[in-house]
Amino acid sequence: MVWFRVNANRDVNPELARERESPSFNVETLVTVLDGSLEETHLRRSVVLHVIRDPVFSRENVHFKTGQERYEGAIERSFHLRNIMTQKGWATEGPEMSYVYRLALSGELAFNVHGVFLKSVMALGTDEQIAKWASLASNYNIIGTYAQTELGHGTYLRGLETTATFDIKTQEFVINTPQITATKWWPGDLGKSCTHAVVLAQLITKDKSHGMHPFIVQIRSMKDHSPLPGITVGDIGPKMSFEHIDNGFLMLRSVRIPKENMLSRYSEVLPDGAYVKRGSDKINYFTMIAVRVSMLGNEVLASLKKACTISVRYSAVRRQSELKPGDQEAKIIDYQTQQQKLFPLVATCYAIHFTVKYVQKLYNEVSLTIQKGNFDSLPELHAVASAVKAYASEICSNGVEVCRKACGGHGYSLFSGLPSLYTKVVAACTYEGENTVLHLQTARFLVKSFLLAQSGKALPASTTYLSSPVSNRCRANNQSDFLNPDVYVEAYQQRAYRLVASAANKMHGLVQSGSEQYLAWNNTSVELVKASIAHTHYMTVKIFADALQYVSSEPEIQTAIKRVCDLYALHGVFTNAGDFLQDGYLSGKQLDLATAAYLHLLPLIRYDAVLLVDAFDFADAELLSAIGSYDGNVYHNLLECVQRNPDNKKVSATPTQQMRCRGVPASLA
Amino acid sequence: MVWFRVNANRDVNPELARERESPSFNVETLVTVLDGSLEETHLRRSVVLHVIRDPVFSRENVHFKTGQERYEGAIERSFHLRNIMTQKGWATEGPEMSYVYRLALSGELAFNVHGVFLKSVMALGTDEQIAKWASLASNYNIIGTYAQTELGHGTYLRGLETTATFDIKTQEFVINTPQITATKWWPGDLGKSCTHAVVLAQLITKDKSHGMHPFIVQIRSMKDHSPLPGITVGDIGPKMSFEHIDNGFLMLRSVRIPKENMLSRYSEVLPDGAYVKRGSDKINYFTMIAVRVSMLGNEVLASLKKACTISVRYSAVRRQSELKPGDQEAKIIDYQTQQQKLFPLVATCYAIHFTVKYVQKLYNEVSLTIQKGNFDSLPELHAVASAVKAYASEICSNGVEVCRKACGGHGYSLFSGLPSLYTKVVAACTYEGENTVLHLQTARFLVKSFLLAQSGKALPASTTYLSSPVSNRCRANNQSDFLNPDVYVEAYQQRAYRLVASAANKMHGLVQSGSEQYLAWNNTSVELVKASIAHTHYMTVKIFADALQYVSSEPEIQTAIKRVCDLYALHGVFTNAGDFLQDGYLSGKQLDLATAAYLHLLPLIRYDAVLLVDAFDFADAELLSAIGSYDGNVYHNLLECVQRNPDNKKVSATPTQQMRCRGVPASLA
Repeated sequence: MVWFRVNANRDVNPELARERESPSFNVETLVTVLDGSLEETHLRRSVVLHVIRDPVFSRENVHFKTGQERYEGAIERSFHLRNIMTQKGWATEGPEMSYVYRLALSGELAFNVHGVFLKSVMALGTDEQIAKWASLASNYNIIGTYAQTELGHGTYLRGLETTATFDIKTQEFVINTPQITATKWWPGDLGKSCTHAVVLAQLITKDKSHGMHPFIVQIRSMKDHSPLPGITVGDIGPKMSFEHIDNGFLMLRSVRIPKENMLSRYSEVLPDGAYVKRGSDKINYFTMIAVRVSMLGNEVLASLKKACTISVRYSAVRRQSELKPGDQEAKIIDYQTQQQKLFPLVATCYAIHFTVKYVQKLYNEVSLTIQKGNFDSLPELHAVASAVKAYASEICSNGVEVCRKACGGHGYSLFSGLPSLYTKVVAACTYEGENTVLHLQTARFLVKSFLLAQSGKALPASTTYLSSPVSNRCRANNQSDFLNPDVYVEAYQQRAYRLVASAANKMHGLVQSGSEQYLAWNNTSVELVKASIAHTHYMTVKIFADALQYVSSEPEIQTAIKRVCDLYALHGVFTNAGDFLQDGYLSGKQLDLATAAYLHLLPLIRYDAVLLVDAFDFADAELLSAIGSYDGNVYHNLLECVQRNPDNKKVSATPTQQMRCRGVPASLA
Repeated sequence: MVWFRVNANRDVNPELARERESPSFNVETLVTVLDGSLEETHLRRSVVLHVIRDPVFSRENVHFKTGQERYEGAIERSFHLRNIMTQKGWATEGPEMSYVYRLALSGELAFNVHGVFLKSVMALGTDEQIAKWASLASNYNIIGTYAQTELGHGTYLRGLETTATFDIKTQEFVINTPQITATKWWPGDLGKSCTHAVVLAQLITKDKSHGMHPFIVQIRSMKDHSPLPGITVGDIGPKMSFEHIDNGFLMLRSVRIPKENMLSRYSEVLPDGAYVKRGSDKINYFTMIAVRVSMLGNEVLASLKKACTISVRYSAVRRQSELKPGDQEAKIIDYQTQQQKLFPLVATCYAIHFTVKYVQKLYNEVSLTIQKGNFDSLPELHAVASAVKAYASEICSNGVEVCRKACGGHGYSLFSGLPSLYTKVVAACTYEGENTVLHLQTARFLVKSFLLAQSGKALPASTTYLSSPVSNRCRANNQSDFLNPDVYVEAYQQRAYRLVASAANKMHGLVQSGSEQYLAWNNTSVELVKASIAHTHYMTVKIFADALQYVSSEPEIQTAIKRVCDLYALHGVFTNAGDFLQDGYLSGKQLDLATAAYLHLLPLIRYDAVLLVDAFDFADAELLSAIGSYDGNVYHNLLECVQRNPDNKKVSATPTQQMRCRGVPASLA
C-alpha cells in the first residue's frame, strides 16, 4: 500500500492510473528533492501518518459541524496533540510540529495565540517574569492571548489608544479603553478561551506618555471563567473562515494590575513613576520577521500545493465536451485553456518552494549573526521577508481560487476542499502585515539601495543588481533562446532594475520640482509597489533557476524541473508583457517568440502534470478533498460525502409542506 | 430623513459627512441618470422601502443562522413575497421583482429553480401540458425543479447519460440513471423542497436514441413528502455560499412516468414508438440567453456596486498610519495605493452599468424580431451576451474581492457584508456557462466575422470593426490627449482587431501546415480567449464613451462621469500595457503619458468618490454591512453586531475550562 492511502479501499481510477503508467522521472526521488533529504521525507511521513491514523484528530466530518463544534474540536485536538508531543518528545518549534500544523491538521488547532503569549513573555519579560508566567502558560494552567490591534487601529503601533496609567499610590497600572475605537479586536483565543492577555497599551507615568508597552492582564476568573470586573470580552463573530478560532474583543474599564505585570526586559517603571529604558528591543522586530517566514511555508505555499494537487488530478479524471469530433468527451486537462490555468500554478508552487527555502536559509544565517549582537543584516532580511510574504500570499491565494474555478461546479462544493483552502489562505494577504504596506516597506529599501549605488556605495546581496542596468536589449533570436535561464533571468533583472530606477527617479523629480517628500512618496506609491513586485518576481525566477543545479545528479528530474522553471518564467513574461516591452528590452517579435515558447511548454508539462503534483506527497487525509484524492474516484467520493451528510437522514416534512397551498389533485398524490 | 436610512438612529459620522459637504454634482440627478428616469427611481425606492420595512423579510441576523434556518427563512420569505405580489399586482417578470431580488433581499429567496420548471413547461409543453402543469406550479400546489446537469457532466448536453426509454406495452417512459456519473447534481429546490422535476434525459424508442428531451417526473409523495419508489434524492451538501438553497442530487431506478409527461411542443413519441420532430427549438437557446442577460444586472453588477459602496465609505472613515509626518493618522482613501485599488472598480461599475443597459436593449430588439419568426440576429446576441456575461462576472467577482481585501481585517468579518458578496458572485463565473467556454463561443463568432470580412462580406454591427484595422499608430502626443475618448476608444479597437486577427491567422497557419482543424483550434484557444476579452473590453469602453452624450444636459454630471470613463479606459491600458505596445501602436513614451494621465485622475476621482457610490443608492438594509452604512458609524455598528451575537450571551464554562490542567496558584484565581 502506498503510504498516503491509509484508508483507501478502492482501486485507482484507470483515468488517473494511466497518467502514472510511464513516468518521465521517479516521483519518490522528486519527493526527497523537495523535502531536502530522504531522512526528512521519512520524518515527515511518519509524523503525518501518526496523526492521520489517530481518530481524535479526524477532520473527516468538518463540513457538517457548527462553528461551536469546530471550536471545541480544535481545543480537543490541541490538548491531545500536547499529550502526544510529550510522549514523542516533539519540540514546540521542531519540524514535527510544522508538519502536524500545515499538513496533517491544516491548522485546525486552537491556542496559536496562546503560543504568541508565551513567546512574548519569553522575549519581553524579565527572568523573574519568565519564571512565573512561562511555566503557567506552557502547562496550560492559564490560557493567554496577545492583544495588540484595536477596533480602529491596525498595524500602526503609535495609533493604538489603550492606556496603562501608573498609580504611584497603589503601585498599580490602571488599564483603560478610552473610547470604542480602542477596543482590542481580533486576538485569537480571546473570544472564549483565554484567562490572561498580554495587552499592548500606551504607558503613562506622571502625565507623560512613553509609547506602547506590554502588560499582563487577567481577563477571566480562574474559578468560573467569567470576565473579571471592568472587563467586557467576547467573540467578534463569524468570519470568512477560521470558524474554529475564537477571535475576540476586549474592553477595559479601570482595570488595575500590579506593577510587576508590566513586561520589563527592555523598560521599567520605578516605584516613584520614573521611566527607565534599557537596551534595544530590535529583537522584537526580528520576531515579527520570524512569524512571516514561518507562515510562508506553513500556510501560504501549502495551500497552493494542495489546490494544485486537487485540481490537476480532477482535471485528469473529469471529461467534458468533444475535443476531437466523434471521440468521447475529452479530459479537461487536455484543453489548452485548462493547462494555461493550472500549469503555471504548479510551476509557481515549485518557484515559491525554492524561494521559501532560500528565505529560511537567509533567516537562519541572520539569526546567527544577531545572536552575536550584530543587527546589520536585519534591514535586508526584513525587506526580503516582507516582499516574499506579500508576493507569495497574493500569488498563492489568487492561484488557489483559479484552481477552484477550474474545477467548475464541483470546485464550489465544500467537499472539494477548495473553498476553505481559499477562504483561509487569503487571510494571509492581510494579517502579519498587509501586503501593500509590506511591498512599500521593501520598496523603501530598494530605493535606498538604488540611491546608495548612485553614490557609488556597496549594496546588500539581494540588491547588488541595482548598481547598474544589465543590457538594454534581449539577445534572444529564436523560440528556443527563451528556454535559456540566463536569457529570462536577465530579462527579469532588467525589468526590476528599470521599475525601481523609474520610481526612484520619479520621486526625485517630484521633490526637485518642489513637492514635499511625503507627497512625492505617496504619488509614486503605485509605481513603488509595482517595483517591489518586479523585484520579488525576479528573485523567485533567479532562485528557481539557481536551484536547477542542485538536481544535476538526477538528469530526468532536472529535465522535468527545468521545464517547470521555464514555464514559470515565460508565463510571467506573457502576463506582464508591457513591463518587458515598454523600454524596448523585448521587441514585439521577441514577445511572439517568448509566447510561442511558453505555449509550446504546456503539452510537455501536461505529460508530467499528475506526477508533478503527486510529488507534493499529500496524504488523502491532509487534502480532505472528494475530488482530489490519490485514487481519483471523484464521483464515488462525492456520493459518499452526501451520504455522510446528517442533513440527508431527515427526509420527511419540510417547511415547504407545511406552507404548501391546498387543492392538490388526487392524481398527483 | 433620507429614504434609505429607514432605521437609522445616529448622526452621520463627521468623517463621512465632510465628504458630502460640497458635492461637485447633484447625487440625486446621477441616481436618476443611472435608473433611466425619475419614475424608475421612485418605483425602485418604493419597492425597496416596502420590503425592507417588513419584518418578515429581515435579513439582519443572517450571519447567526444555521444552513437549515437560512433555508427555512428563504422559504418563508418566498411565500410571503408571493402574497405581497398578489396584493400589489407585481408581475413575476416585472421590474419590481428584479428590485426585490437583487436589492432588497439580495437573492435570499427560495424557489428560483421552481421558476425555471414553470418556464420550461411554458416553453416546451403543449397547450394541454401547460394547462395542467403551469397552473399547479404557479399556485405552488407542486414545487418543481429543472434537472439537467449530472455528477459527471456539465454544460455539454450530448454527454448527459440519464435515459428515458419508451415502453410501447404500457405507453410509459422508464427513466433510469445508468451509472453514478449520471446522477442529477446541482438543481436548486431539489435537495429538500421539490415534488416534481423536469428531467433532461436521452430519449430512446425502439432501441434508437433521439438525444436530450424533457420529462416531468414526480419525485416526492404529495402526502408525506417522502421520495417515491425508485428515487434517491437529497441535498448535495455545503457550498461556498448559497446556504439557503437546497441544491440536490437525484438517482432514478426504473421510474415509470406516463407518456404524456414528455414535454412535447417540439417533438413527440407516437403510441407505436415512432419519433416525430416538429418545428425548431431555437427558442430554447434564446431562453438561455435571457437568463444570462438577467443575471448581469441582478447578481453580477449589483455585487460590485455594493462592494464599492462599502469599501469606499469605509476608506473615507478608516484612518491608518501617518501620511504627513506629525499629522493625525490619514484616511486610507487618501493613499494612492488605496485609490488605485478602489477607483478603477467604481469606474468598472459605471462601465458595466451602461454595458448591461446596452445588452438589455439589444436583447429586447432581438426579442421583437424573434417573435416575428426571424432568428437572424440570434448568433450575434448570443456572442454579445456570452462575452459580457463572462467578462462582467470575472471582473466583478475579482473586483468584489479587491474591495474586501482593501478593507483589511474588517473586510474579513462577515459583518462587513463583503465575504458573502464575494462567495456568492464568484459562482456566476461558473454557472449559466463557464466563462472560458463562453469566451471561446464568442471567439468563434469573432473569427467567423473576421473571415467573412476578409472575403468582403458585410458584418454584424458588433463586429464591423473587424473589416479593417484602424491605424497602426496612436496619435496622442501629450498627457491630455489620453483624456480624449476618441483616442482611447481607437486604442481598444485596434487592440481587439489585432488580437482577433492574430488568433485567426495563427489558426489558419496551423491548418495550412497540416494540423487538423480541432487541434488548431485547441492550440490557439489561449489566444482566442484573450481576443474575446479584448473585444468585450473594447465594447465596454465604447459603450461607456457613447453614454457620455446622454448626460450632455447635465454638465456637472457629465464632467464627473467623463472622468470615471477616462479612468476606466486608462486603467485598462495601464494594466494591459503589453497588448497596446506589442505592435508598436503605443510607444513606450506614449504609455508613460497614458500612465501619468491615469494616475493624475485618481485624486480628482477622490474628491467625488463617496458621491459616486452614494449614487448607487443602496439602502443600509440592502448592503447589510456594518462598515458600509450611509452613516459611516463603522465602529459602533461593529460593536452592535457583536452584541447581537447569541454566542456572546453564553459566558460561562467552556471546554477550555473542563480540560484545563490543575494546579493554578490561588493568587491568580
